[in-house]
Amino acid sequence: MIVRFERLAVELPPPSTPDPDGASVVQELMGGKFGELSTFMNYTFQSFNFRDRQKARPFYDLIANIAAEEFGHIEVVAATINSMLTGVSTVGQRARPGRPPARGRPAVPQHPPVDLGRPGALPQNSNGDPWTGEFVNATGDLVQDLVHNYFLESGARREKLRVYEAVDHPAAARLTGYLLVRGGVHQVAYAARWRT
Amino acid sequence: MIVRFERLAVELPPPSTPDPDGASVVQELMGGKFGELSTFMNYTFQSFNFRDRQKARPFYDLIANIAAEEFGHIEVVAATINSMLTGVSTVGQRARPGRPPARGRPAVPQHPPVDLGRPGALPQNSNGDPWTGEFVNATGDLVQDLVHNYFLESGARREKLRVYEAVDHPAAARLTGYLLVRGGVHQVAYAARWRT
Amino acid sequence: MIVRFERLAVELPPPSTPDPDGASVVQELMGGKFGELSTFMNYTFQSFNFRDRQKARPFYDLIANIAAEEFGHIEVVAATINSMLTGVSTVGQRARPGRPPARGRPAVPQHPPVDLGRPGALPQNSNGDPWTGEFVNATGDLVQDLVHNYFLESGARREKLRVYEAVDHPAAARLTGYLLVRGGVHQVAYAARWRT
Amino acid sequence: MIVRFERLAVELPPPSTPDPDGASVVQELMGGKFGELSTFMNYTFQSFNFRDRQKARPFYDLIANIAAEEFGHIEVVAATINSMLTGVSTVGQRARPGRPPARGRPAVPQHPPVDLGRPGALPQNSNGDPWTGEFVNATGDLVQDLVHNYFLESGARREKLRVYEAVDHPAAARLTGYLLVRGGVHQVAYAARWRT
Amino acid sequence: MIVRFERLAVELPPPSTPDPDGASVVQELMGGKFGELSTFMNYTFQSFNFRDRQKARPFYDLIANIAAEEFGHIEVVAATINSMLTGVSTVGQRARPGRPPARGRPAVPQHPPVDLGRPGALPQNSNGDPWTGEFVNATGDLVQDLVHNYFLESGARREKLRVYEAVDHPAAARLTGYLLVRGGVHQVAYAARWRT
Amino acid sequence: MIVRFERLAVELPPPSTPDPDGASVVQELMGGKFGELSTFMNYTFQSFNFRDRQKARPFYDLIANIAAEEFGHIEVVAATINSMLTGVSTVGQRARPGRPPARGRPAVPQHPPVDLGRPGALPQNSNGDPWTGEFVNATGDLVQDLVHNYFLESGARREKLRVYEAVDHPAAARLTGYLLVRGGVHQVAYAARWRT
Repeated sequence: MIVRFERLAVELPPPSTPDPDGASVVQELMGGKFGELSTFMNYTFQSFNFRDRQKARPFYDLIANIAAEEFGHIEVVAATINSMLTGVSTVGQRARPGRPPARGRPAVPQHPPVDLGRPGALPQNSNGDPWTGEFVNATGDLVQDLVHNYFLESGARREKLRVYEAVDHPAAARLTGYLLVRGGVHQVAYAARWRT
Repeated sequence: MIVRFERLAVELPPPSTPDPDGASVVQELMGGKFGELSTFMNYTFQSFNFRDRQKARPFYDLIANIAAEEFGHIEVVAATINSMLTGVSTVGQRARPGRPPARGRPAVPQHPPVDLGRPGALPQNSNGDPWTGEFVNATGDLVQDLVHNYFLESGARREKLRVYEAVDHPAAARLTGYLLVRGGVHQVAYAARWRT
Repeated sequence: MIVRFERLAVELPPPSTPDPDGASVVQELMGGKFGELSTFMNYTFQSFNFRDRQKARPFYDLIANIAAEEFGHIEVVAATINSMLTGVSTVGQRARPGRPPARGRPAVPQHPPVDLGRPGALPQNSNGDPWTGEFVNATGDLVQDLVHNYFLESGARREKLRVYEAVDHPAAARLTGYLLVRGGVHQVAYAARWRT
Repeated sequence: MIVRFERLAVELPPPSTPDPDGASVVQELMGGKFGELSTFMNYTFQSFNFRDRQKARPFYDLIANIAAEEFGHIEVVAATINSMLTGVSTVGQRARPGRPPARGRPAVPQHPPVDLGRPGALPQNSNGDPWTGEFVNATGDLVQDLVHNYFLESGARREKLRVYEAVDHPAAARLTGYLLVRGGVHQVAYAARWRT
Repeated sequence: MIVRFERLAVELPPPSTPDPDGASVVQELMGGKFGELSTFMNYTFQSFNFRDRQKARPFYDLIANIAAEEFGHIEVVAATINSMLTGVSTVGQRARPGRPPARGRPAVPQHPPVDLGRPGALPQNSNGDPWTGEFVNATGDLVQDLVHNYFLESGARREKLRVYEAVDHPAAARLTGYLLVRGGVHQVAYAARWRT
Repeated sequence: MIVRFERLAVELPPPSTPDPDGASVVQELMGGKFGELSTFMNYTFQSFNFRDRQKARPFYDLIANIAAEEFGHIEVVAATINSMLTGVSTVGQRARPGRPPARGRPAVPQHPPVDLGRPGALPQNSNGDPWTGEFVNATGDLVQDLVHNYFLESGARREKLRVYEAVDHPAAARLTGYLLVRGGVHQVAYAARWRT
């Protein structure tokens, strides 16, 4: 069971210039194969399926605690996307003089070209493809899981760096900085455990 | 952010006769379109994207709190599946005299026909198809979300009844009884809110 | 535009012994890659996209008319599945004395093990996988479309024969007999046209 | 069974300036989760599976008649897309002096950058992802189906407004105006029925 | 470029008792997430994308050579499946007296319940789900690729053992014995390289 | 079994101006429905499943030999994509003065906006969707397979022409020229065989 607090893991800067294209890129950190939903769900299912918890208590605690932290990560990724979408669009945008009509599709189609009560963050990657349970590996073998998690965190680090490079928005910068630090800690933790 | 406790939302009976076929059916309550991952993720993303929380505080609290409770539901579904799989299989099963070899595929292929450190619960439905972010609807319109959630809980109730009828195992009976009560509360809560 | 009549393309025998397993097999004729939804949607989109209809009138008429007939085919496949599911299950099935509990999953999970107001036919194949627009080929080249349609009808014929062999139920026999005749006509028509 | 007429539900303006990007956006009304293929197929399968039609005649007629009308909607969406693609591209486009080469991918890859006998409309959304039978809900419970259909029409309305805002082409304007009126009628009809 | 020889990597026993259920299980070694198509395609794409081959020659050779060997593995898996399907079914099976009709679906629906010129092996797993390019990881970072490949081979080993336990057929026994030896060599090779 | 040589089927021009957008388009020739992975895998599985090879030797040889050649095609498509990506991006790109930051997503998200040891070619189409085993048809009927292959090569030709028109890069021009010639030979070969 969990208790949920209405507080973000890291304080984001207040909404500034809207950046819907950047928000689409940040979706990769939410629903991409190496995004935070993948880390959250991988560790959560590994902890659910952990047998003999008493005999391998430090390993169980490691995985279960990182899983809980990852919930905070999808929360802050969502908050970043919503921040970047704040003020993005208004009904009547098409008719507004002095700027071109909103034309073509937004990068993630569910992001708003016009303000019709649309969502912000979604369980999708930057290509608009939904996250899938196929991304979860819970092998039932502790060593294999740890090797896998190290590989997953390495891929997550790569994606965070790519988003950091590709997006120029204060909220995204704050997000990627935070996630890089936390993911680095997890990567080291998994590697250290698995080599023992 | 969340704090996670190592305690199930409902106490399950101790592992008894293994029932891998039944465990496959219970997977529908985990990763099916109307399973607990769907309710968990729908309400979680709706709460992430909720703007103007102060102005609509009771609605935000309703959705965010049910989302948090749903984490406990996927946890107890996983525990049920793992309980039903306890003792299911052993290496050498094929050679055991006096019973037919394990042949053919298990209903969910990732469930163990032989004990090779395989996982228990997975983010899949009873057909072995992975859960997908496509199942999440976060429309950005509060009334629409509440209508949707009422429909989702209705479908979830239907699946729970079907599993209750189809599976004859103490852990599954305990699980479905518990989920039916909680889901009924949620269904009424969404309906009550949305008609206001 | 269409006008829809409440009449089946072929009269089915009245519901007899329920056969949920057979109904699952018949789903292949609905939502399989070579099922009737595939023929219906392929010819419908080819007719939608047909340019210069006046210059190639007989070809347009051929494709558009077969498309319209295919709607009647998905309708009769659905009626067959529903006939085979009639009387299949009741609430309380588990407790009924003198017979084993319904256990394990039905072949198509959406088909009812217990009668909870469940649907009959669905846009899925016999494996429970949803039909997808990926199965539609509308190349924009008339000759290529005709070659494709000949191939599609050949595959459809193969599936109908397989279902005929695998299912022993009066409604399924009537269905496959009817579809084999009509599909054979279409196959010949596409081949004749494309060789001209 | 159906009879098909070669007439559109609404008269479109004659082809004007080609707009392939806009056509990609309009694809959302064809094959998106809330597009016209979804409404067509949802109501069609609900009508196929409707038991006891005599006892609930007005409800059956409502669903079956709207289903039939929806076929006309996918037809007119297809005609709009084809109109917007008319004259879009020619072989040799790359060499045409005075304008940049066609570079990068078209938004829906199957739409033509060059005129090679390519299709127009396809069963896909604006992201190029195929429509899937997963989008169909036929619960077998009349009240649930009506709640679902109300939610579906609400989502469809949202998408139509978004396309109206995002695309500036006479055919698209005519299409969205027409669909908004008809969808609004259906939305009200489902809501009225379900509250009875 | 490749040169292909008509010779299997391991000699299979001659076709014996047909075992279509077992053949369905063996499909996991073909198109499962940890099947031979996955190893073949992962190493092939990693070798395609390998830059600076001269500077890291032994690593390139390792990956490219194992990739080539994996082609032989999908070939022998296919031969095993075809061997297990030899003699499986005949037209008229339904009418054969003294045995029950072929009823229900075969585990992989494309496998033949009746002999209608149906294929043997397909790029699918034991659940009938198609192999997907999503299973390929080519990170562009040599160390990450090697860690990944070690994890992939570990999962492949697990699946081979499971198939060995679950299927009791001479061809499958020969296949799994062979693959376990070769996969073990690859696993060690990747681990040795990556720790250097 | 195969022997693999480190030599491309056609010599590509040396890397010149990077063209990541063009590389995304070329991905259609790799992992699209009518791409080279589809031809490679279709013919490979048809050859694997070919029974009675001695009785139909010329047909077996035709399919098996083209399958082997197609491996060389995916190899040269990959080399083209990697050539077009050479020099594309560097870490620190965002900070480079005098040019706008890299913003928005690359057309295929896995292609590098920044140089982080990212892969080149992947088993995906130009829309970033993974290749799937669903694209393989191995009917088990020789004539049907030949008709199918003729249709597949026709679609492949269409895609090659579209890429030729849409991309203006020396490596892509060399690639499409080569593939058009080879695909044309295969198309004629299948047509000739199937009409015998």
